[in-house]
Amino acid sequence: MLTYELEYSRTEPLYLQIYEHIRNDMESGHIRAGEKLPSKRGLSSQLGVSIVTVENAYHQLEAEGYIKAVPKKGWFAEKISISQKEREISKQEFRETEEIQNPPEHMLFPFSVWAKIMREILASDQTRLMTRTPCEGAYELRSAIAEHLRNFRNMQVKPEQIIIGAGTEYLYMLLHLLLGESVFGVEEPGYSKISDIYTDLGLQCIRIPMQTDGIDLNALQNSETEIMHISPSHHFPTGTVTSVGKRYALLGWASEQDNRYIIEDDYDSEFRLSGKPIPSLFSLDVMDKVIYMNTFSKTLTPTIRISYMILPFSLLEQFHQKLSRYACTVSNFEQYALAEFIKKGCFEKHLHRMRKYYKDRRNQLFSDMKLYQIFNNSVIMNENAGLHCLVKFRTELSDEDLLKEVRKSGFQAAALYEYYHKKPEQNLHILLFYY
Amino acid sequence: MLTYELEYSRTEPLYLQIYEHIRNDMESGHIRAGEKLPSKRGLSSQLGVSIVTVENAYHQLEAEGYIKAVPKKGWFAEKISISQKEREISKQEFRETEEIQNPPEHMLFPFSVWAKIMREILASDQTRLMTRTPCEGAYELRSAIAEHLRNFRNMQVKPEQIIIGAGTEYLYMLLHLLLGESVFGVEEPGYSKISDIYTDLGLQCIRIPMQTDGIDLNALQNSETEIMHISPSHHFPTGTVTSVGKRYALLGWASEQDNRYIIEDDYDSEFRLSGKPIPSLFSLDVMDKVIYMNTFSKTLTPTIRISYMILPFSLLEQFHQKLSRYACTVSNFEQYALAEFIKKGCFEKHLHRMRKYYKDRRNQLFSDMKLYQIFNNSVIMNENAGLHCLVKFRTELSDEDLLKEVRKSGFQAAALYEYYHKKPEQNLHILLFYY
Repeated sequence: MLTYELEYSRTEPLYLQIYEHIRNDMESGHIRAGEKLPSKRGLSSQLGVSIVTVENAYHQLEAEGYIKAVPKKGWFAEKISISQKEREISKQEFRETEEIQNPPEHMLFPFSVWAKIMREILASDQTRLMTRTPCEGAYELRSAIAEHLRNFRNMQVKPEQIIIGAGTEYLYMLLHLLLGESVFGVEEPGYSKISDIYTDLGLQCIRIPMQTDGIDLNALQNSETEIMHISPSHHFPTGTVTSVGKRYALLGWASEQDNRYIIEDDYDSEFRLSGKPIPSLFSLDVMDKVIYMNTFSKTLTPTIRISYMILPFSLLEQFHQKLSRYACTVSNFEQYALAEFIKKGCFEKHLHRMRKYYKDRRNQLFSDMKLYQIFNNSVIMNENAGLHCLVKFRTELSDEDLLKEVRKSGFQAAALYEYYHKKPEQNLHILLFYY
Repeated sequence: MLTYELEYSRTEPLYLQIYEHIRNDMESGHIRAGEKLPSKRGLSSQLGVSIVTVENAYHQLEAEGYIKAVPKKGWFAEKISISQKEREISKQEFRETEEIQNPPEHMLFPFSVWAKIMREILASDQTRLMTRTPCEGAYELRSAIAEHLRNFRNMQVKPEQIIIGAGTEYLYMLLHLLLGESVFGVEEPGYSKISDIYTDLGLQCIRIPMQTDGIDLNALQNSETEIMHISPSHHFPTGTVTSVGKRYALLGWASEQDNRYIIEDDYDSEFRLSGKPIPSLFSLDVMDKVIYMNTFSKTLTPTIRISYMILPFSLLEQFHQKLSRYACTVSNFEQYALAEFIKKGCFEKHLHRMRKYYKDRRNQLFSDMKLYQIFNNSVIMNENAGLHCLVKFRTELSDEDLLKEVRKSGFQAAALYEYYHKKPEQNLHILLFYY
């Protein structure tokens, strides 16, 4: 029987404390390989913490290979054999991981497949690896991405339109150089990093409010916006899907003036967990007005820095004229490795596994919610798209207190109001939950 | 006996035609493995081309592993075994290499050592590889660079001051975000890419003329320059080394106002071929006014994108405040591989080999020059630093005609006047030669 003393006064979350106790017990031999661990419910009642807290600890241990779930049997300790030094490093880095909010899910990265492909790349094609790719990236990779988008996102893209870069932040910088001192529109509420970067670059940033079917077109029309940055397939954080009618209206807005463009941020379209896939705005565009952006940071790992954007034909010549002096920021080794990874079908297989993983996490979250009274008067919104959902509560509590209550029960949540640039005056009673 | 018909009308340079003929003969079996090739002098007189032209063809064949020089014996064909497809790819890429002016020297990259280290990285430290490094890069790499600079450049740098980025262009962008809308000074003549990038970023760029001992201090004092970008150890393209007196004067200039900084571009300090190493400006600076920049593109290969800058302590806090949202643009795999490569001494060993290679190339170039009359009234300048030298001619020819004459003899050269933003009115009679 595991009895741990948890310190509520420590800043470290409870689930991390449980994680560490169990790990220490495994490393010191108190828990032996193959030994069955208590059920989540059992350990939660024994330690006086929520099931979600135990769940989080178990998931972390599982992601790091310490324990394993056997269906219908429970959780079992795995065999471990790591040196003290590795243990120390790993411990330290786990903390860092937490600090910068990397989810343990990146441990799902298909490491052995990637390593195999990288070894193949290293063993061949020396001349190719030592020859600079064009500024927009290796043709092999761009053509693999085009093929992937054709098969799985129903998008018709020429490799020539694809620009590879080391992270979306860098691509924003290139876009700034390409489009000049334009006025950018961003969604309100929205992902603050986007407007932060545009502001860093000295660009004027106008906030366009979200409505239930996408951004407010009147507000857009009445603003000076030239480049509108939106996430029509799955808005962050509200989860709103832009309606088809509004998509056409947006394309109409862009086509009215030469200097207008739409940046389609398709940041998590791969994680639509069920329901019909939503066509990209890019594929509706016949006027060459949409710049499409996506990244492998979320789908693979943020520690390999590869993102891409797709330029409309109208901007390609300008890109080559203005930006060909900017060498591609991703190394050849990883460009060719990723190209192979996609071409061999490993990427699609990996996405399939991740979708299943997040679906399981989501279902677990929803069943955990049923155990707590605070969710009695709540409604889950937009649960099929992406890696988070919103929950609207009927409550007298302020948003701050509501968040505190929910966190006390062991849930990791954020309040919707935090994502507004101009904080709403009234309580929204809506929280975000990550799977 | 090799008899090739060279087509003078083709746009392809003669040395490339010779290269292709020999390669085709090797691939078709007309030249067998182990067979001795004609001497450079022999083949040059037989084909009626300059020795340098044959030399260039042989060097390219050598860099690609087709032939091998045996000291005091001559050149011999190596054993080759490549498929037709690889041949086609390699051929096409060789042309691309030429087009983007990559020197064949990058074939010196220690591929097998790098591949071995990368395989070791792939086989271990999975958690580390999947955990994001801080925005400034992996501590291991920064600490390896600091150690390298201490041992081989006599610089005292803390790893905390080092910022890793995917290429210097990206680091310029970060510097722009860090320093804001400052007025930049650049050297005239100079490397035009630097001023092009600053101009792309919307920054005002003032050109400060070069004198024989560094930039013109009066011109600097009388300008609005806030950030002065210089290459004091080896100015491009004149090769000028900034005198110690002027270095102190420059530091004095920077210390006069809070918003003044010097960017020390140390782009080829590793290639000083003989003579005393020149201390960096950074190491003279006690006022925290110098930002040091360097890259592994020239010393390793431009296809691995890793550069770094060293910030003075005065800018570190600002960097973390303003730029911590910009994730490091270099992948973990390559950051940790490069750290090992440096720590194991492979980098220093590689530099040693490259210096020897360039020294041989330089000596060969100088002896080739003696064969041509046009060099009779010429003086070689600054031949000990970096990868190129200047030659000043006493001649009645215009710079254009001089360049044509020299190129006709098979030399790869450029005219100094091309590196001026404001072209000089009189002929300079100075050409650049790359080793």
